[in-house]
Amino acid sequence: MSQEFKLTTVEQMEADQARLHQTAEQVGIDTWQDRVAKQMPHCGFGEKGICCRICAMGPCRITPKAPKGICGATADAIAGRNYLRMAAGGAATHSDHGRECAWKLHDATEDGYYHVTDASKLLKLAKEWGVPTKGRDIYDVAHDVADISINEYGKPTGYQRWVDRATKERQKVWEKEGITPRAVDREVVTAMHMTHMGNTADAEALVRQSLRCGLSDGWGGSMTGTEMSDIMYGTPMPHDTEGNLGVMELDQVNIVCHGHDPAVSEMIIRYAEDPEMIKRAKKVGAKGINVVGLCCTGNEMMMRHKIKMAGNFLQQEAVILTGVCDAIVVDVQCIFPNIGPVSECFHTKFYTTSPIARIPLSEYLEITSQNAGKIAEKIVREAIDNFPNRDPGKIFIPEHKHIATVGYSCEGIKSRLDTVANTHLDEFDTYKPLIECVKSGVIRGAVAMVGCNNPKVRPDYSHIEIMKKLLENDIVIVATGCAAQAASKAGLLDRRAKIFCGEGLRRVCTLADIPPVLHMGSCVDISRMMLLVTGIAKDWGINTTQLPVVGCAPEWMSEKAVSIANYVVATGIDTYLGIDPLVGGSAQMMELITEGTRKMVGAGYIINTDPEQLVKDIIDGIEAKRAALGI
Amino acid sequence: MSQEFKLTTVEQMEADQARLHQTAEQVGIDTWQDRVAKQMPHCGFGEKGICCRICAMGPCRITPKAPKGICGATADAIAGRNYLRMAAGGAATHSDHGRECAWKLHDATEDGYYHVTDASKLLKLAKEWGVPTKGRDIYDVAHDVADISINEYGKPTGYQRWVDRATKERQKVWEKEGITPRAVDREVVTAMHMTHMGNTADAEALVRQSLRCGLSDGWGGSMTGTEMSDIMYGTPMPHDTEGNLGVMELDQVNIVCHGHDPAVSEMIIRYAEDPEMIKRAKKVGAKGINVVGLCCTGNEMMMRHKIKMAGNFLQQEAVILTGVCDAIVVDVQCIFPNIGPVSECFHTKFYTTSPIARIPLSEYLEITSQNAGKIAEKIVREAIDNFPNRDPGKIFIPEHKHIATVGYSCEGIKSRLDTVANTHLDEFDTYKPLIECVKSGVIRGAVAMVGCNNPKVRPDYSHIEIMKKLLENDIVIVATGCAAQAASKAGLLDRRAKIFCGEGLRRVCTLADIPPVLHMGSCVDISRMMLLVTGIAKDWGINTTQLPVVGCAPEWMSEKAVSIANYVVATGIDTYLGIDPLVGGSAQMMELITEGTRKMVGAGYIINTDPEQLVKDIIDGIEAKRAALGI
Repeated sequence: MSQEFKLTTVEQMEADQARLHQTAEQVGIDTWQDRVAKQMPHCGFGEKGICCRICAMGPCRITPKAPKGICGATADAIAGRNYLRMAAGGAATHSDHGRECAWKLHDATEDGYYHVTDASKLLKLAKEWGVPTKGRDIYDVAHDVADISINEYGKPTGYQRWVDRATKERQKVWEKEGITPRAVDREVVTAMHMTHMGNTADAEALVRQSLRCGLSDGWGGSMTGTEMSDIMYGTPMPHDTEGNLGVMELDQVNIVCHGHDPAVSEMIIRYAEDPEMIKRAKKVGAKGINVVGLCCTGNEMMMRHKIKMAGNFLQQEAVILTGVCDAIVVDVQCIFPNIGPVSECFHTKFYTTSPIARIPLSEYLEITSQNAGKIAEKIVREAIDNFPNRDPGKIFIPEHKHIATVGYSCEGIKSRLDTVANTHLDEFDTYKPLIECVKSGVIRGAVAMVGCNNPKVRPDYSHIEIMKKLLENDIVIVATGCAAQAASKAGLLDRRAKIFCGEGLRRVCTLADIPPVLHMGSCVDISRMMLLVTGIAKDWGINTTQLPVVGCAPEWMSEKAVSIANYVVATGIDTYLGIDPLVGGSAQMMELITEGTRKMVGAGYIINTDPEQLVKDIIDGIEAKRAALGI
Repeated sequence: MSQEFKLTTVEQMEADQARLHQTAEQVGIDTWQDRVAKQMPHCGFGEKGICCRICAMGPCRITPKAPKGICGATADAIAGRNYLRMAAGGAATHSDHGRECAWKLHDATEDGYYHVTDASKLLKLAKEWGVPTKGRDIYDVAHDVADISINEYGKPTGYQRWVDRATKERQKVWEKEGITPRAVDREVVTAMHMTHMGNTADAEALVRQSLRCGLSDGWGGSMTGTEMSDIMYGTPMPHDTEGNLGVMELDQVNIVCHGHDPAVSEMIIRYAEDPEMIKRAKKVGAKGINVVGLCCTGNEMMMRHKIKMAGNFLQQEAVILTGVCDAIVVDVQCIFPNIGPVSECFHTKFYTTSPIARIPLSEYLEITSQNAGKIAEKIVREAIDNFPNRDPGKIFIPEHKHIATVGYSCEGIKSRLDTVANTHLDEFDTYKPLIECVKSGVIRGAVAMVGCNNPKVRPDYSHIEIMKKLLENDIVIVATGCAAQAASKAGLLDRRAKIFCGEGLRRVCTLADIPPVLHMGSCVDISRMMLLVTGIAKDWGINTTQLPVVGCAPEWMSEKAVSIANYVVATGIDTYLGIDPLVGGSAQMMELITEGTRKMVGAGYIINTDPEQLVKDIIDGIEAKRAALGI
């Protein structure tokens, strides 16, 4: 049977998108494909990072004839400032999501809408931070932990407490380089100040602050987001679900949750499971309620529940174009403003829920700790009542979907490793079995596949082709965000996908009963990857920079990705980018981000916009790390 | 004699700049005039605010054929996001300066480099904030006040405590509109998050956050900067000094201090007054040491000391081109990176002192509370030793300079008003004498002239021509930043300049012995203006929106100005702009910032790039306010 298992090809996915695009044409609405065509060619100054709009004397643009802006800023200063501002935008965004999660835990009560679900994870963290637990109500502990987390965003002195989790070697490097992150918000403000007109023009200082800003996210805000979410909604553990547009159901009420912060989707899931609601759905002619996820909210949902994943970033319009999306509910980040106009062409109800993401043509229902259930109930009810309003003439649901085994948090990964641990060693809850596989060469190394979709390259193609090539070469993949969803859509999260692996990795997949691509969560969950590499380095007894482990963001698009890339590199992990980091107009900046950071933190970017070449670079990089270790 | 008093014309200033530009050509270095020529024409997309570089799918640009970015963001969303990001950049920058001041007070000790100078202002603030003072060491009080200030930047809950100083009416409006500012850093991060790819696309929400972000600066960070500086370095009181490039001295060691935060310049002043240093200067052939100021550091210096002001923003290269700048020491903000290359063409030593402003081709000497004196001493010493290295063939010092009576803090203004208070009323320390003048029509109103220089208009021309016209019309001027320095250079801070006023204002100037343009300080000191209008509104018993008082930034350029404009408007004061606020590509944004904010906070922008027309608009606006009051 496994011989018959086939991946969905990018061509098939593209055919689905093309069919849905016909519907868009039919209803007279543009989608991203149309807009990309109209936006071509992009402005070369912006693409190379040498357009400065930081003050109103300009905009200034660097050319051979005009090598300086009006203030005298060179290409290096301009590209460097733009780059740091992207990192700051990303760090602010990820981290603010984390803060919201911490506030939800702060507000959690036994009889409220938000609860403590993983008490053991909470207690572990409480212990780590010296919060008393003995004889205390779990919610009192939760509130203390939440308050400490919230305080990390604005505390006037000291460094991010999550940093204590890093290897001693990393902590020393960060200290030496002056990039140990202080309060999260402080690093963002420092970045904004440094890049303001008339401040830092030294590219190296700008790159250094980018690393620090990134660290305040990866070892600060994002880690807060992941940990608080796990405590409240449960730590993901391996289980099966499904992914791709084929999860939309013709005969069910479809509610799509999109964005990043699971606080809203968790409520939608809860109320959609309410028997009263299911009864109501049946009354309007539906067989049930199908809550599905999109983008990173989708990842959060599928990691913790059996919720199916409808698509990644570039499918957010497609999901409405199926004609069966009865409601789309968004929280924050990566939401196309075009969701409004597209929804208006269908019966689809479009709800915004956060003051951070106010979008025209939506119904705005702000969700708070106090009203979350009521709002979710209203949305579910209205989605149900909207079911009969579908226009049959506009319906097309692509058939493709795949089983996806997901839920590989660090705890989830260790739980699988425990099943294959050599009982003679008598050691559990470690990464040692995995390390042994890597040492012996059964697995050559690991790649963290992360990031978005970006129409600058063929969407999903880079993700999927790179993954396939890595698997063939016995390189295991951990994935998050839209990269993980690309794998889900293709079928690479199906355990049967082990047939595409080299012999060594295939055997490991069989023994551990895992798919060859391990879904670790949403984009804030790259913090899990940081803990994974840290755990492996500690269990192995080597530095993170020595591990045959790299990061790869072949289709990144958002500022968050810039922040992520900075903290991954600062954590000592080489990062392979498939999209130019918008600093190409400055030779100094290019040198700094590819080589300069190596002198500071022992890692850097490798950039190649050709995915075939990029994956070769990755394999070479991993083999070089192995050679240096003598394995 | 007063009949003979003549202003320096813009033509004369331009002739000086042109002569110095000859030196630049002689030494083979470009100045801003050359770079402006090369940067023309500016990119129309950037100027209209409809170029989006927030994610890496783009850059996207709005055209009639491409009315949306790839994500679907319209011109309104793109211009709105860019606008909010400018406000956030400005608020971060101003406020971070304020934080540094608070940290200096935190570190102040009797025998350290930073001291409590205005103990009475400190005690007043301590009382305002409920800090115990009785029987306590003044430094203990200072440290408590400093800690509270620092905490305002990152406190997880509550609103900015400086807000309590606003009128009750304003506090209610801000509350109602949801724009009462929380922790300073939080507002910046919220702005960055809202403007990240896939978040807020609703222009009104973006404008609302711009107001809130601005308020966190004007009624938060900037006010911290002003108050902490006054406590440490003394509250400015009226006194005479001089301004314009003619203050550079051929036979003295010239040390130019440039930037914004007086922490560095205060130390330079102190060590330049050291008899040992003066002896050393004489030994190398100089007659003494002439410390002069530039830009807002210059304002800080001239407001508190007899230090002369060499120029404003666009004279920072000129001051080196005189050939007699032995050292230029910068702290933060508005520093041309070109100071490096220009200095290299002369004997001039260029020192950077802050991690926020790292600039190539400078010597970096980080100044901290612990080393400030030592670094300042080293700089002064090296400047002296550099005096003999001047190249006589490169020297030209323009002759123009004017006496400037400066130091009009709120306390300084009240001290002048007290001298003309009607003793029958027996009330001192109020704005009532000024209010009586306005009520009676002797003074028609007041204009706060603020902001930068911007080569998009004829530099200083707008400032000076608008001021002259206002004075003719019996409108008194308070000024800060580069606007105040333009007045200084022209001679409008000379008390004799009252001859250019209408009859009413001239009489007031004579009675109160003040110049018609009152220098209130640097750009963070626009917080003084907020307290001034608040004080006047309270003493008058009307709302700030009713006062015949407006703000005007005819040549603004920096993001700080966007933050300022937002808090001035939010404080209820109409703001007249002479430079387009870079949102012209969005009709909705133009409507929101000119009219939309009126519905929220009762004030808005009036934009006119023609200074002749802008001043007419201002006079009309003031007369309309008077008419509404029935005066």
